[in-house]
Amino acid sequence: MKRTKINDLLKAPAFGTIVNVKGWVRTRRGNKNVGFIALNDGSTINNIQIVVDMARFDEEQLKDVTTGACLSVDGELVESVGSGQAAEIQARQIEVLGKCDNTYPLQKKGHSMEFLREVAHLRPRTNTFGAVFRIRHNMAMAIHTFFHQKGFYYFHTPLITASDCEGAGQMFQVTTMNLYDLKKNEDGSIDYSKDFFGRQTSLTVSGQLEGELAATALGAIYTFGPTFRAENSNTPRHLAEFWMIEPEMAFYDIDDLTALEEEFIKYCVTWALEHCKDDLQFLNNMIDKGLLERLNSVVNTDFVRLPYTEGIRILEEAEKNGHKFEFPVYWGVDLASEHERYLVEEHFKKPVIMIDYPKEIKAFYMKQNDDGKTVQGTDVLFPQIGEIIGGSVREESYDKLMNRINELNIPMKDMWWYLDTRRYGTCPHAGFGLGFERLMLFVTGMANIRDVIPFPRTPKTAEF
Amino acid sequence: MKRTKINDLLKAPAFGTIVNVKGWVRTRRGNKNVGFIALNDGSTINNIQIVVDMARFDEEQLKDVTTGACLSVDGELVESVGSGQAAEIQARQIEVLGKCDNTYPLQKKGHSMEFLREVAHLRPRTNTFGAVFRIRHNMAMAIHTFFHQKGFYYFHTPLITASDCEGAGQMFQVTTMNLYDLKKNEDGSIDYSKDFFGRQTSLTVSGQLEGELAATALGAIYTFGPTFRAENSNTPRHLAEFWMIEPEMAFYDIDDLTALEEEFIKYCVTWALEHCKDDLQFLNNMIDKGLLERLNSVVNTDFVRLPYTEGIRILEEAEKNGHKFEFPVYWGVDLASEHERYLVEEHFKKPVIMIDYPKEIKAFYMKQNDDGKTVQGTDVLFPQIGEIIGGSVREESYDKLMNRINELNIPMKDMWWYLDTRRYGTCPHAGFGLGFERLMLFVTGMANIRDVIPFPRTPKTAEF
Repeated sequence: MKRTKINDLLKAPAFGTIVNVKGWVRTRRGNKNVGFIALNDGSTINNIQIVVDMARFDEEQLKDVTTGACLSVDGELVESVGSGQAAEIQARQIEVLGKCDNTYPLQKKGHSMEFLREVAHLRPRTNTFGAVFRIRHNMAMAIHTFFHQKGFYYFHTPLITASDCEGAGQMFQVTTMNLYDLKKNEDGSIDYSKDFFGRQTSLTVSGQLEGELAATALGAIYTFGPTFRAENSNTPRHLAEFWMIEPEMAFYDIDDLTALEEEFIKYCVTWALEHCKDDLQFLNNMIDKGLLERLNSVVNTDFVRLPYTEGIRILEEAEKNGHKFEFPVYWGVDLASEHERYLVEEHFKKPVIMIDYPKEIKAFYMKQNDDGKTVQGTDVLFPQIGEIIGGSVREESYDKLMNRINELNIPMKDMWWYLDTRRYGTCPHAGFGLGFERLMLFVTGMANIRDVIPFPRTPKTAEF
Repeated sequence: MKRTKINDLLKAPAFGTIVNVKGWVRTRRGNKNVGFIALNDGSTINNIQIVVDMARFDEEQLKDVTTGACLSVDGELVESVGSGQAAEIQARQIEVLGKCDNTYPLQKKGHSMEFLREVAHLRPRTNTFGAVFRIRHNMAMAIHTFFHQKGFYYFHTPLITASDCEGAGQMFQVTTMNLYDLKKNEDGSIDYSKDFFGRQTSLTVSGQLEGELAATALGAIYTFGPTFRAENSNTPRHLAEFWMIEPEMAFYDIDDLTALEEEFIKYCVTWALEHCKDDLQFLNNMIDKGLLERLNSVVNTDFVRLPYTEGIRILEEAEKNGHKFEFPVYWGVDLASEHERYLVEEHFKKPVIMIDYPKEIKAFYMKQNDDGKTVQGTDVLFPQIGEIIGGSVREESYDKLMNRINELNIPMKDMWWYLDTRRYGTCPHAGFGLGFERLMLFVTGMANIRDVIPFPRTPKTAEF
């Protein structure tokens, strides 16, 4: 008999038909007359209830129907009165495909997040992580669909790189050299000509620079791939390996850029609300009671555009009125989390896109404003999450870019190819970066970034 | 004035309206009365022709309109008689956004593929690579859409891994240790407790094993991410960094698996034929005259299912009839490219899915048939390309899997989590792997794998 996925079964139940379902036992209860098996196959957070007329089965047949066991069940799909679902299955035949003994780590419910991280190979079988990973899929699908509909091209920038220019953080070295027999040059330095790529290489911290190459050829592109930071940060917001989305658009100015940032996030959140109802409802009930309200609010709110200078004025005003900040507020300061939260959560009570930052606190490639002091950087600041997007118009003038590179003493020897975009038919362009797991934290309400990626990589942790 | 993308302009030209286009000069020609500028913005392979009434512009204004320069053009969209396009623009205003002098490497047409690899940062601006990368985007979109519609979940398996069990090839080591001051244990071995992850780590060669964890929880998943091989292979078919798609499905048997493989490839090729008409036509004209015919033929052909044993019989028969193979043919041999090509291109003249391989030439995790000799592996063999997909039903029996692991002496110390899938509620399941760039070679007709990925990583090459 052809198997039906539980998600399809529950969507439009054909009562009275004989169906086959396959999945894993979540719970089993009952008495000597009737048994109830909650079966889940991962296609949805909803279990299908299997009703077992004990007179039709002998106990020997059912002894292996335990939590975690894998079953194939044939039976009649009938309307349900008490199971919380519209449909249930009256079992005719039950086959145990895979037994599960009582050493199974997910026997009981209510494990801590810390414990579940230790069994990350099994946690997708729980309600919470099943929901999180189905939502993760949907957010990826939303992102690809959004850009595809807008005529952006998905562009794969390299993971292994010989550039270390952007300085976004410490990098992982990639090598095939025998560490027990490292060849040295005459001056004592390591002879990288013997390494796989003939030079020192690392894992990328950003695909932006290569993305700019593509945008100045294909018009509008986006990356969506893994990115790496070798930072020794043991926090609920940092991963050593995470996924980034980096769109880059020729002929976009700062208004086009902030409009795209806002439209993009709203599209993703709307997609979640439309495609992940059951999973979001579960997370709203069990993880974060304010989740659905917060998601709906973002979709229905115009984001504020706030020049940095105006932001500083508001914060100084707040201080005058008695609000205490731990860190100082003055023009030129890199805003602390408490400052951003005050603006977003207390002053505006809505998402804020801050623009026109002091050039000293932003990257060298950001477009310089005529005031000589600020650059066209944009940070999208969200309630609870803080910065969810960082972007900018890129400096397209070769001379201005080189001046800034020289001021900052950025090593550009490996960057001739980046400068060529400004040398040959340079064009105004802009782009932004979004940490996919930051978006996932916002959309799921999960508190720790290690719980929105299947197998988190953090200092001292590379299991599975 | 709001810019219109050339692709949108040409799709449904609103003749008589004033439009703005922005893009890069491909060619400029003309005489003292009229000039013609072919402008491309990357949104399509098609240029828009800008017609310049020289009486309305002085030469000083136009001197920077050179190949590669970036322009913003306002003008009236009019029907075209001679440009090969339905529409052209009568220029009213031309602004040079970015000049391009005659050191621009793409001045002339007809560069060799080898030269274009040296300027991989600029080659997306050529017709060929613009087409290839737009198709690459479309193939990625086809893949995500295919799996999304079938209820598969996109699952991100880790890139950095502490496992080295599959033995699919040599691996790149990932480290943050100071290579000038490596700490050693008492026995002289390197002290990896000081490394970032507290153990030796590498870049993954496959996400399959983690994918199986997800499939036995979410039902059906797919990966689509970068994969690495540190093999010193300088061939037109090997990359050190490439993208793989690896779906993994609970409750699939071998018939479900081969049906999915065939449906999947046909879906991707059909998508290309429907969404990439102009780019494919260009590649058919310029790169591979048989391309469109081959793509259409795959879509309209039933793939052969061929048991390995039957394949050997056919090859032996061919030898008897006088066909000469360089390598020997006998039951148990790992088929050479010439054998596969004979079956696909000469005997069946259609794609072949070979199944039921001798267990000795396939991986340990493949499901063992009852004959004790063969396993349920599947290779999809294509004309010209050879193996495009490798897959199998996975051995779900803990005992059989462990026997095979012991026979092969596979180090399983780091694989306890993989074995847990067989320990706790094991289920029949299957999966396959597709090298994205192999698919790209087939769909574009390009001859070298370095020309279907933006920035190829190969031995001694990690530029850009």
